[in-house]
Amino acid sequence: MPLSLSDLNPALLKVEYAVRGELAIKAEAYRERLQEPNHGLPFDRIITANIGNPQAKGLDQKPITFSRQVAALTEYPPLIELGRDLFPADALARAKELCAEIGSIGAYSHSQGVPFIRRNVAKFIQERDGYPSDYNNIFLTTGASEGVSLLINMLITGPKDGILIPIPQYPLYTAALAQYSGVPIPYFLDESAGWLTRPDDVENAVQKAIAEGVKPKGLVVINPGNPTGSLLKEDAIRRLIQVAEKYSLVLLADEVYQDNLHRRDTQKFYSFKKIVSDLQSSVSLVSFHSISKGVTGECGRRGGYFETHNLSPEINALIYKMRSVTLCPPLAGQIGVDSLVRPPRPGDESYELWKKETDEIHQALASRTRIMAERLNQLEGATCVDSPGALYLFPRIYLSDKACKAARAAGKEPDTFYSLALLDATGICTVSGSGFGQKEGEFHYRLTCLCEGVDDYVGKLEKFHKTFMAKYAD
Amino acid sequence: MPLSLSDLNPALLKVEYAVRGELAIKAEAYRERLQEPNHGLPFDRIITANIGNPQAKGLDQKPITFSRQVAALTEYPPLIELGRDLFPADALARAKELCAEIGSIGAYSHSQGVPFIRRNVAKFIQERDGYPSDYNNIFLTTGASEGVSLLINMLITGPKDGILIPIPQYPLYTAALAQYSGVPIPYFLDESAGWLTRPDDVENAVQKAIAEGVKPKGLVVINPGNPTGSLLKEDAIRRLIQVAEKYSLVLLADEVYQDNLHRRDTQKFYSFKKIVSDLQSSVSLVSFHSISKGVTGECGRRGGYFETHNLSPEINALIYKMRSVTLCPPLAGQIGVDSLVRPPRPGDESYELWKKETDEIHQALASRTRIMAERLNQLEGATCVDSPGALYLFPRIYLSDKACKAARAAGKEPDTFYSLALLDATGICTVSGSGFGQKEGEFHYRLTCLCEGVDDYVGKLEKFHKTFMAKYAD
Repeated sequence: MPLSLSDLNPALLKVEYAVRGELAIKAEAYRERLQEPNHGLPFDRIITANIGNPQAKGLDQKPITFSRQVAALTEYPPLIELGRDLFPADALARAKELCAEIGSIGAYSHSQGVPFIRRNVAKFIQERDGYPSDYNNIFLTTGASEGVSLLINMLITGPKDGILIPIPQYPLYTAALAQYSGVPIPYFLDESAGWLTRPDDVENAVQKAIAEGVKPKGLVVINPGNPTGSLLKEDAIRRLIQVAEKYSLVLLADEVYQDNLHRRDTQKFYSFKKIVSDLQSSVSLVSFHSISKGVTGECGRRGGYFETHNLSPEINALIYKMRSVTLCPPLAGQIGVDSLVRPPRPGDESYELWKKETDEIHQALASRTRIMAERLNQLEGATCVDSPGALYLFPRIYLSDKACKAARAAGKEPDTFYSLALLDATGICTVSGSGFGQKEGEFHYRLTCLCEGVDDYVGKLEKFHKTFMAKYAD
Repeated sequence: MPLSLSDLNPALLKVEYAVRGELAIKAEAYRERLQEPNHGLPFDRIITANIGNPQAKGLDQKPITFSRQVAALTEYPPLIELGRDLFPADALARAKELCAEIGSIGAYSHSQGVPFIRRNVAKFIQERDGYPSDYNNIFLTTGASEGVSLLINMLITGPKDGILIPIPQYPLYTAALAQYSGVPIPYFLDESAGWLTRPDDVENAVQKAIAEGVKPKGLVVINPGNPTGSLLKEDAIRRLIQVAEKYSLVLLADEVYQDNLHRRDTQKFYSFKKIVSDLQSSVSLVSFHSISKGVTGECGRRGGYFETHNLSPEINALIYKMRSVTLCPPLAGQIGVDSLVRPPRPGDESYELWKKETDEIHQALASRTRIMAERLNQLEGATCVDSPGALYLFPRIYLSDKACKAARAAGKEPDTFYSLALLDATGICTVSGSGFGQKEGEFHYRLTCLCEGVDDYVGKLEKFHKTFMAKYAD
């Protein structure tokens, strides 16, 4: 008898991951069709605004030269000698040091990651926060997602265990909760106050879950937010830690956008690790970081790490065991993490170029975000929080009853209906708000700020929006 | 209240993964101690014979030059021009082609892997088997393990679902079954016949499981075997496929050692895909391959793929969705897969060197395996199947009652007790047979054939074995 879906794990059938869902798949099909001479589409390119993938074709954010030079030299160590005239001295020295520590990058490393690189991560954290970090508590990963997924798998013991997640959230969290049959416990961010996280709302969500027989096990915080870009203030972090302490929740701090601040002269990122240390809190904390975001944008390299704090040696050993079944994270990703936490310093041969490259990326992200938010806010039937960080805007759209009815008739969520129409008309690929979660009756979409030619494509978006709103005016 | 193990998923507590367990951890501690001037240990180096990690420090199997050149050039594409005098023409051309297809390797690819690379994998399979392969059924992975784990997660719907695994087996299978709360259904390989797989034994195991209320969902076959190295004959494969068909089992064919044959002039590897196609069978099949083994040995790169065959589009879509949550496999691993399936051909500038490098590795593995098996078989109280493939020997040791009692008194399995004593006395790190499974009352250990200086270290092993056997003579 042929295998059918009903033979398979029903939990996996419930997993949803909108970022690579219907809209992305349709955009991919359009992209292939565009290569035909008579494609008949009303646009000439796909504008990939659905995913935080800065180096994707068509976005083409440049990789940081220093880290790619180190990567190439460690891939093919004879180049350190053969190509000594082609590379700056600090890249050559760094590669030599890494090769001596690691040996071949074709070998499995320690399952937590190369000890030398973990020590460098610990130093980076210590410099950032002013508190010690133990490299034994650092676990390098294949991007941040892998670590998040493992922690959720660990925390969920049965179908009545839950984890608090912000709404809107990055859909990895609901996907992992579906996969491991846990309950997502939503707490809503306040859009009217710039997507503010209100610790009282979090505590209310905890109490509501308990009243409904769900056991809250963890609290996910995304800072800066995805998809909202909002940045947590120090006091809010302090109060969230107190809520986690009070209800014995494990804090899962997704801090992969910590370097993506658009007003860096006035903003400050506070890590949960720092504030937990300030408070001398004993709360269990796992903090995630990645090379996929920030200004490195090295998504395809698959590198990241998490740091555990206040976990017992037995629990760290359990995490090690589970990591060891997957053998080790990719060495190219581990070396990417090393470059992230040890960028060139003033005086190093690569410093000026590194500074120029990273400054340009920061500026481009900030300027695109500001321009998009301004213009979206001028549209009738749309509002948009001007995101202070991360790589996204999450505009709200006010859809008419007529639009909602047309959507339901087409078997779509209204915001998905809007985003599909946007894609069909302009080639702009976004992700509809229903993929991230939103209040009942509200509609949004997520738009990355990674695409060049912002004037051009925001112009198309404006034109589409006006046409759509006119077509479906009540 | 601090988090304790009892708050965590009990399934994960049950996971065991001996390859990186107690013995490996102790060896790692010894390795650090060896760096101290007065280490007081009776050996000067750790002989890493526990894990199939050919490029590990101390083993130092050289990477294939061509694939590392392509890797370096795709990491830092300006080198294609800058370093045109340092690289052979075919490596430069390959890198240029990959860069054009992929764009930046810092971008997430398609979640199944770069389409161009999947097409190359499909061609490789087609050439190997003589049957078509569809690139839409190819899923690139972060090493083979990740795919195996996903398939087991998919197949297990509840605690009464089981999967047939060979005993001895590679402990990934029991680890994944423990993680996803499935039942391992053992079928025993016949050591007296060179670790032969007997399809009748497999069918008996299926029937026994059904009688015990367990629902068999899948059949794992490891060919060539790990830890046994045994190679399946065509007829056995045919009969295993018939068993899978009869009981609607999904065949999981772990073929990561397909290129590790020690008598290549007389041996032939038959893939399950080929024989399923010969039989025009409709059995559901998933076949795994990897760049970590073979002669590439690129473990740290984390690359591999699986091919699905006879799965419905809905099930392929489910697999795609689950892969998309992890975003994509590392691009360095994907490029490694491309080099595996598209090695230099006669006439290419890199061909001679590639041929020399791969021949040398094949010969070294074959010769070490033969020498080790011969000498192990001459020891009293030990026998060893002369493994025809893979990277391992799995000698049997005949431990006395006295040794078993001493082991139990130390709280260890007898073979773990032996392997620990071997490590303490010689620095040779193996994995005891209990980590792979064996018949009640039998004892083994797994030894890789990757270490240089085989005469020297087999000498140490022989001396240890004799001393141990004398000490614990009944």
